[in-house]
Amino acid sequence: MSEAVESLEASVFARECGSRRTLQNATSRWAVLVLAALTESDYRFNALRRRVDGVSERMLAQTLQTLERDGLIVRTVLETIPPKVEYSLTPLGREVGARLTDLIELIEGSMPAVLEARAEHDAR
Amino acid sequence: MSEAVESLEASVFARECGSRRTLQNATSRWAVLVLAALTESDYRFNALRRRVDGVSERMLAQTLQTLERDGLIVRTVLETIPPKVEYSLTPLGREVGARLTDLIELIEGSMPAVLEARAEHDAR
Repeated sequence: MSEAVESLEASVFARECGSRRTLQNATSRWAVLVLAALTESDYRFNALRRRVDGVSERMLAQTLQTLERDGLIVRTVLETIPPKVEYSLTPLGREVGARLTDLIELIEGSMPAVLEARAEHDAR
Repeated sequence: MSEAVESLEASVFARECGSRRTLQNATSRWAVLVLAALTESDYRFNALRRRVDGVSERMLAQTLQTLERDGLIVRTVLETIPPKVEYSLTPLGREVGARLTDLIELIEGSMPAVLEARAEHDAR
Protein backbone atom coordinates (compact mmCIF):
# COMPACT_ATOMS: atom_id res chain seq x y z
CA MET A 1 0.00 0.00 0.00
CA SER A 2 2.70 2.47 0.93
CA GLU A 3 4.51 1.64 -2.32
CA ALA A 4 1.39 2.42 -4.33
CA VAL A 5 0.96 5.73 -2.54
CA GLU A 6 4.59 6.57 -3.13
CA SER A 7 4.30 5.79 -6.81
CA LEU A 8 1.26 8.02 -7.26
CA GLU A 9 3.43 10.92 -6.26
CA ALA A 10 6.55 9.86 -8.17
CA SER A 11 8.60 12.84 -9.32
CA VAL A 12 12.07 12.64 -10.82
CA PHE A 13 12.63 16.20 -9.59
CA ALA A 14 12.64 14.99 -5.99
CA ARG A 15 16.09 13.85 -5.00
CA GLU A 16 14.86 10.90 -2.93
CA CYS A 17 12.18 9.63 -5.31
CA GLY A 18 12.85 6.13 -6.64
CA SER A 19 11.74 7.25 -10.09
CA ARG A 20 14.88 9.37 -10.40
CA ARG A 21 17.09 6.31 -10.01
CA THR A 22 14.96 4.37 -12.51
CA LEU A 23 15.27 7.25 -14.98
CA GLN A 24 19.03 7.29 -14.46
CA ASN A 25 19.24 3.54 -14.93
CA ALA A 26 17.34 3.79 -18.24
CA THR A 27 19.33 6.80 -19.51
CA SER A 28 22.80 5.76 -18.43
CA ARG A 29 25.49 5.97 -21.08
CA TRP A 30 25.08 2.32 -22.13
CA ALA A 31 21.48 1.66 -21.14
CA VAL A 32 20.16 4.08 -23.77
CA LEU A 33 22.00 2.17 -26.50
CA VAL A 34 21.15 -1.28 -25.10
CA LEU A 35 17.43 -0.46 -24.88
CA ALA A 36 17.44 1.06 -28.37
CA ALA A 37 19.26 -1.99 -29.79
CA LEU A 38 16.74 -4.34 -28.19
CA THR A 39 13.86 -2.47 -29.89
CA GLU A 40 15.34 -3.78 -33.17
CA SER A 41 15.54 -7.43 -32.13
CA ASP A 42 16.45 -9.76 -29.31
CA TYR A 43 20.17 -10.18 -28.86
CA ARG A 44 22.63 -12.61 -27.36
CA PHE A 45 25.33 -11.08 -25.20
CA ASN A 46 28.16 -11.05 -27.73
CA ALA A 47 25.99 -9.81 -30.60
CA LEU A 48 24.69 -7.03 -28.35
CA ARG A 49 28.23 -6.14 -27.41
CA ARG A 50 29.10 -5.81 -31.09
CA ARG A 51 26.00 -3.70 -31.75
CA VAL A 52 26.72 -1.34 -28.87
CA ASP A 53 30.13 -0.46 -30.27
CA GLY A 54 32.64 0.39 -27.54
CA VAL A 55 30.95 -1.12 -24.48
CA SER A 56 33.14 -3.31 -22.28
CA GLU A 57 32.03 -6.78 -21.25
CA ARG A 58 31.81 -5.64 -17.64
CA MET A 59 29.74 -2.52 -18.35
CA LEU A 60 27.37 -4.41 -20.63
CA ALA A 61 26.82 -7.13 -18.02
CA GLN A 62 26.22 -4.52 -15.32
CA THR A 63 23.84 -2.52 -17.53
CA LEU A 64 21.85 -5.63 -18.45
CA GLN A 65 21.58 -6.65 -14.80
CA THR A 66 20.31 -3.24 -13.72
CA LEU A 67 17.73 -3.12 -16.53
CA GLU A 68 16.63 -6.66 -15.74
CA ARG A 69 16.16 -5.77 -12.07
CA ASP A 70 14.03 -2.75 -13.01
CA GLY A 71 11.82 -4.98 -15.18
CA LEU A 72 12.81 -3.48 -18.54
CA ILE A 73 14.53 -6.51 -20.01
CA VAL A 74 14.25 -10.27 -19.70
CA ARG A 75 17.10 -12.75 -19.80
CA THR A 76 16.04 -16.06 -21.34
CA VAL A 77 18.14 -19.21 -21.23
CA LEU A 78 17.42 -21.34 -24.31
CA GLU A 79 17.86 -25.03 -23.60
CA THR A 80 20.15 -25.74 -26.50
CA ILE A 81 23.52 -27.47 -26.38
CA PRO A 82 25.38 -25.40 -25.42
CA PRO A 83 22.68 -23.24 -23.73
CA LYS A 84 22.10 -19.83 -25.29
CA VAL A 85 21.20 -16.73 -23.33
CA GLU A 86 19.05 -14.14 -25.02
CA TYR A 87 18.01 -10.66 -23.93
CA SER A 88 14.71 -9.08 -24.90
CA LEU A 89 12.49 -6.20 -23.81
CA THR A 90 9.53 -6.55 -21.45
CA PRO A 91 6.35 -4.65 -22.39
CA LEU A 92 7.53 -1.76 -20.19
CA GLY A 93 11.01 -1.99 -21.74
CA ARG A 94 9.41 -1.69 -25.18
CA GLU A 95 7.63 1.50 -24.11
CA VAL A 96 10.84 2.96 -22.72
CA GLY A 97 12.79 1.80 -25.77
CA ALA A 98 10.30 3.44 -28.14
CA ARG A 99 10.74 6.80 -26.41
CA LEU A 100 14.52 6.49 -26.45
CA THR A 101 14.42 5.58 -30.15
CA ASP A 102 12.35 8.73 -30.79
CA LEU A 103 15.00 10.76 -29.01
CA ILE A 104 17.87 9.06 -30.84
CA GLU A 105 16.28 9.60 -34.25
CA LEU A 106 15.69 13.25 -33.44
CA ILE A 107 19.31 13.73 -32.36
CA GLU A 108 20.79 11.79 -35.29
CA GLY A 109 18.68 13.90 -37.65
CA SER A 110 19.64 17.14 -35.91
CA MET A 111 23.40 16.77 -36.07
CA PRO A 112 23.82 19.50 -38.74
CA ALA A 113 22.08 21.97 -36.36
CA VAL A 114 24.14 20.75 -33.40
CA LEU A 115 27.43 21.04 -35.29
CA GLU A 116 26.46 24.52 -36.44
CA ALA A 117 25.58 25.57 -32.89
CA ARG A 118 28.90 24.24 -31.60
CA ALA A 119 30.92 26.00 -34.29
CA GLU A 120 29.10 29.26 -33.54
CA HIS A 121 29.61 28.82 -29.80
CA ASP A 122 33.30 28.05 -30.12
CA ALA A 123 33.85 31.03 -32.46
CA ARG A 124 32.56 33.52 -29.86
CA MET B 1 29.22 19.78 -47.25
CA SER B 2 31.23 17.09 -45.50
CA GLU B 3 29.27 17.87 -42.31
CA ALA B 4 26.00 17.33 -44.15
CA VAL B 5 27.22 14.02 -45.54
CA GLU B 6 28.40 12.96 -42.10
CA SER B 7 25.06 13.84 -40.57
CA LEU B 8 23.13 11.78 -43.12
CA GLU B 9 24.91 8.78 -41.76
CA ALA B 10 24.75 9.71 -38.08
CA SER B 11 24.38 6.66 -35.87
CA VAL B 12 24.66 6.62 -32.10
CA PHE B 13 25.67 2.96 -32.37
CA ALA B 14 28.98 3.97 -33.96
CA ARG B 15 31.53 4.71 -31.29
CA GLU B 16 33.06 7.64 -33.17
CA CYS B 17 29.87 9.29 -34.39
CA GLY B 18 29.31 12.78 -32.97
CA SER B 19 25.64 11.97 -32.42
CA ARG B 20 26.60 9.60 -29.61
CA ARG B 21 28.24 12.42 -27.66
CA THR B 22 25.23 14.67 -28.28
CA LEU B 23 22.92 11.92 -27.04
CA GLN B 24 25.09 11.50 -23.94
CA ASN B 25 25.10 15.23 -23.33
CA ALA B 26 21.29 15.34 -23.50
CA THR B 27 20.80 12.25 -21.33
CA SER B 28 23.43 12.89 -18.68
CA ARG B 29 22.27 12.60 -15.10
CA TRP B 30 21.49 16.32 -14.77
CA ALA B 31 20.80 17.26 -18.40
CA VAL B 32 17.64 15.11 -18.48
CA LEU B 33 16.25 16.99 -15.49
CA VAL B 34 17.42 20.42 -16.69
CA LEU B 35 15.84 19.94 -20.12
CA ALA B 36 12.61 18.63 -18.59
CA ALA B 37 12.47 21.56 -16.16
CA LEU B 38 12.95 24.04 -19.01
CA THR B 39 9.98 22.56 -20.88
CA GLU B 40 7.87 23.90 -17.98
CA SER B 41 9.21 27.45 -18.08
CA ASP B 42 12.34 29.52 -18.45
CA TYR B 43 14.47 29.58 -15.33
CA ARG B 44 17.11 31.71 -13.71
CA PHE B 45 20.13 29.80 -12.39
CA ASN B 46 19.16 29.65 -8.73
CA ALA B 47 15.52 28.77 -9.40
CA LEU B 48 16.66 26.00 -11.74
CA ARG B 49 19.01 24.74 -9.08
CA ARG B 50 16.11 24.53 -6.62
CA ARG B 51 13.92 22.75 -9.20
CA VAL B 52 16.61 20.17 -10.01
CA ASP B 53 16.84 19.06 -6.41
CA GLY B 54 20.31 17.85 -5.49
CA VAL B 55 22.40 19.34 -8.28
CA SER B 56 25.54 21.19 -7.25
CA GLU B 57 26.26 24.69 -8.51
CA ARG B 58 29.26 23.36 -10.42
CA MET B 59 27.40 20.49 -12.11
CA LEU B 60 24.48 22.72 -13.05
CA ALA B 61 26.80 25.33 -14.59
CA GLN B 62 28.68 22.63 -16.50
CA THR B 63 25.46 20.98 -17.72
CA LEU B 64 24.03 24.31 -18.89
CA GLN B 65 27.22 25.15 -20.73
CA THR B 66 27.29 21.81 -22.55
CA LEU B 67 23.63 22.09 -23.55
CA GLU B 68 24.15 25.68 -24.70
CA ARG B 69 27.11 24.62 -26.84
CA ASP B 70 25.03 21.86 -28.48
CA GLY B 71 22.31 24.40 -29.30
CA LEU B 72 19.65 23.00 -26.96
CA ILE B 73 19.40 25.95 -24.59
CA VAL B 74 19.89 29.69 -24.78
CA ARG B 75 21.33 31.92 -22.09
CA THR B 76 19.79 35.39 -22.13
CA VAL B 77 21.12 38.33 -20.13
CA LEU B 78 18.26 40.68 -19.24
CA GLU B 79 19.43 44.27 -18.97
CA THR B 80 17.94 44.94 -15.58
CA ILE B 81 19.74 46.36 -12.54
CA PRO B 82 21.24 44.06 -11.45
CA PRO B 83 21.34 42.08 -14.73
CA LYS B 84 19.38 38.80 -14.73
CA VAL B 85 20.43 35.69 -16.60
CA GLU B 86 17.70 33.40 -17.87
CA TYR B 87 17.89 29.99 -19.48
CA SER B 88 15.38 28.76 -22.05
CA LEU B 89 15.08 26.03 -24.68
CA THR B 90 15.86 26.53 -28.36
CA PRO B 91 13.40 24.98 -30.86
CA LEU B 92 15.62 21.88 -30.98
CA GLY B 93 15.84 21.88 -27.18
CA ARG B 94 12.04 21.91 -27.03
CA GLU B 95 11.89 18.85 -29.28
CA VAL B 96 14.45 17.02 -27.16
CA GLY B 97 12.73 18.17 -23.96
CA ALA B 98 9.35 16.91 -25.18
CA ARG B 99 10.79 13.43 -25.77
CA LEU B 100 12.49 13.39 -22.39
CA THR B 101 9.25 14.51 -20.73
CA ASP B 102 7.45 11.61 -22.44
CA LEU B 103 10.03 9.24 -21.02
CA ILE B 104 9.88 10.77 -17.54
CA GLU B 105 6.09 10.58 -17.41
CA LEU B 106 6.20 6.95 -18.51
CA ILE B 107 8.75 6.08 -15.84
CA GLU B 108 7.00 8.03 -13.08
CA GLY B 109 3.76 6.27 -13.96
CA SER B 110 5.43 2.86 -14.11
CA MET B 111 7.03 2.89 -10.68
CA PRO B 112 4.61 0.29 -9.25
CA ALA B 113 5.70 -2.14 -12.00
CA VAL B 114 9.37 -1.28 -11.48
CA LEU B 115 9.16 -1.77 -7.71
CA GLU B 116 7.38 -5.08 -8.23
CA ALA B 117 10.04 -6.23 -10.70
CA ARG B 118 12.80 -5.28 -8.27
CA ALA B 119 11.17 -7.09 -5.36
CA GLU B 120 10.71 -10.19 -7.49
CA HIS B 121 14.30 -10.01 -8.74
CA ASP B 122 15.77 -9.58 -5.27
CA ALA B 123 13.68 -12.46 -3.89
CA ARG B 124 15.18 -14.96 -6.36
